[in-house]
Amino acid sequence: MQANPVALFNETVEGISPIADELRERAVSRHAQLTKPPGSLGVLESVGIDLAAIQQTLQPRVESCCVVVMAADHGHTKSHQVGPYPRDVTAQMVANFVSGGAAINAIATTVGADMKIVDIGVDAHMGALQSALLTHAPVGPGTADITTGPAMTKAQLYAAIGQGLAVAEQCKAAGYQAVALGEMGIGNTTIASAMTAVMLDLPASEITGRGTGADDTMLQRKVKVIETAIAENSLNALDGLDILQKIGGFELAGLAGLALGLARHRIAIVADGFISTAAVTAATRINPTVSNYLFCGHLSPEPGHRFLLDALQKRPLLNLDLRLGEGTGACLSLTVLKTAANILSDMATFDTAGVDNKTG
Amino acid sequence: MQANPVALFNETVEGISPIADELRERAVSRHAQLTKPPGSLGVLESVGIDLAAIQQTLQPRVESCCVVVMAADHGHTKSHQVGPYPRDVTAQMVANFVSGGAAINAIATTVGADMKIVDIGVDAHMGALQSALLTHAPVGPGTADITTGPAMTKAQLYAAIGQGLAVAEQCKAAGYQAVALGEMGIGNTTIASAMTAVMLDLPASEITGRGTGADDTMLQRKVKVIETAIAENSLNALDGLDILQKIGGFELAGLAGLALGLARHRIAIVADGFISTAAVTAATRINPTVSNYLFCGHLSPEPGHRFLLDALQKRPLLNLDLRLGEGTGACLSLTVLKTAANILSDMATFDTAGVDNKTG
Repeated sequence: MQANPVALFNETVEGISPIADELRERAVSRHAQLTKPPGSLGVLESVGIDLAAIQQTLQPRVESCCVVVMAADHGHTKSHQVGPYPRDVTAQMVANFVSGGAAINAIATTVGADMKIVDIGVDAHMGALQSALLTHAPVGPGTADITTGPAMTKAQLYAAIGQGLAVAEQCKAAGYQAVALGEMGIGNTTIASAMTAVMLDLPASEITGRGTGADDTMLQRKVKVIETAIAENSLNALDGLDILQKIGGFELAGLAGLALGLARHRIAIVADGFISTAAVTAATRINPTVSNYLFCGHLSPEPGHRFLLDALQKRPLLNLDLRLGEGTGACLSLTVLKTAANILSDMATFDTAGVDNKTG
Repeated sequence: MQANPVALFNETVEGISPIADELRERAVSRHAQLTKPPGSLGVLESVGIDLAAIQQTLQPRVESCCVVVMAADHGHTKSHQVGPYPRDVTAQMVANFVSGGAAINAIATTVGADMKIVDIGVDAHMGALQSALLTHAPVGPGTADITTGPAMTKAQLYAAIGQGLAVAEQCKAAGYQAVALGEMGIGNTTIASAMTAVMLDLPASEITGRGTGADDTMLQRKVKVIETAIAENSLNALDGLDILQKIGGFELAGLAGLALGLARHRIAIVADGFISTAAVTAATRINPTVSNYLFCGHLSPEPGHRFLLDALQKRPLLNLDLRLGEGTGACLSLTVLKTAANILSDMATFDTAGVDNKTG
């Protein structure tokens, strides 16, 4: 824990630098010399160029990477059933991550990513669960109910963001070149939908989806919860901190802090689905330069996700109908980053390979 | 080389078995027990289920895999400039593959795939190029010009298919669980466009694109070459062998043979972009059951590719605007297959993990 999370937060937000245009231009020029028709590697070219600019080298690499899964509970799930899974599942899934049985474990292992799990506010006694993968850092036993007031206090907001900043320091120390942002929290598509409705000024009914599988009754209830929360809380759509505090969640605030810390350390940020992207969008409303370091791992079928990607002006790297969260899509997309980096770093040029370039 | 390629071809085509519905049903049922909302892993679920049915096990794996790049020249490029790169580039790129400088080298290394390169008809003296990666198996110094008659003789067709069947035997012996189909051949988008126009009964102008970067003049010339080739050759759209012989290419016939051989050995086939998919589509017109073993790695911006995918009823795994060929998109998509297999094989069930299942 940080002694003064507000001071570290301010220092981080002020310390984020834009990526260098000069490196980007040199990377574009390098790509044009590689043995392939110009532009023929599509998104792999643009991702490689972005990584070069982020890492400030023409030989970017994503050899060492990690998925961070932040888990927390939400006040509104105590009194409003907005999805088919009980609140206890948040804690149970953290145990499943620790024992290696979840989807994110299989994906992280397959793509060669490390994994960090952070209990940032699960409503259960998690102390018995000991693992090198797991950090116990609960800000509280879940947030308060957003339908009756703010999700958290200002002090809790800074504590949650501070946990994210602390993880970013660990990522920097570990030498990670990219970090995927995952989350687990029963009820958190409701939170992401509320944040999206406010940040993008869209009606809740348009951006709210079925999450883990809400039926029609649950979906109607979910929209009502969101509308009530927005009416109850006086919100400033342009203020990421205000949104996170009043209608956010501990894991979302933690991921926003993590994104800010990664951007400050020039580490590529890879957003996952709807919830992770909502958290990162809030971070861009704290400092828009976060977007320079951001990749969006995949497109979720949750209706709000496409709106967030459009607002961020990001193209999702994968489109596989994933709607699980946990960082699954972001973690899988790390392979796209690895590949894009290696292509720019390792391919031969027309000159060195003795291949004839275009004639017409 | 096979003593009698026609006999092996017939034996292979007859030896392809449909995948077992029973395994598919068991894999669907297994997926529903894993610790995630049902269906929430989208395409990763369907790919895992397909792999289970192909490999006849509930614990499929794609640990050992390969990309095969078949290279050849085309008669029409001697007298018709249909693209911006000279004919010599085919041979030069084979040398680039051998020395490790091409995009496919970087991708194969990143995803952990082996690589095989086959000179199946490059118009150059390739003998000096020695590498464990490279097989010298030229059927001839490129095909004949399709605007004046058939691309190859029947004997050449069976020889090229036989080379593909021989590679399939090597893949079986090596224990590969998935093989990506790549190609290199200046002028071969013209060939793929001609094949697609005939197989799908579409006008050449609608399915012909700019390949490696044809300008307007080259594009008009390309459409004219295709229309002339179709008029000159009497073609049976339902006969894959007829299409490959008259308006195909050695590398396309080789890949069609490879696909047939892989299907016979129950090895997952991963088609790449437009050219590779055209070759596989011809293979499905030789035996439609090939489709049971087929994944389509990515969606190319070449206009004909979407038509082929629709005809095959396959969803591309990636959509990254790749239009290079060489097996690049297919090879990258092997990570999707690996991940899908590991998810089905390694995830915990609700019961074993002690996670509560849906309540509503």
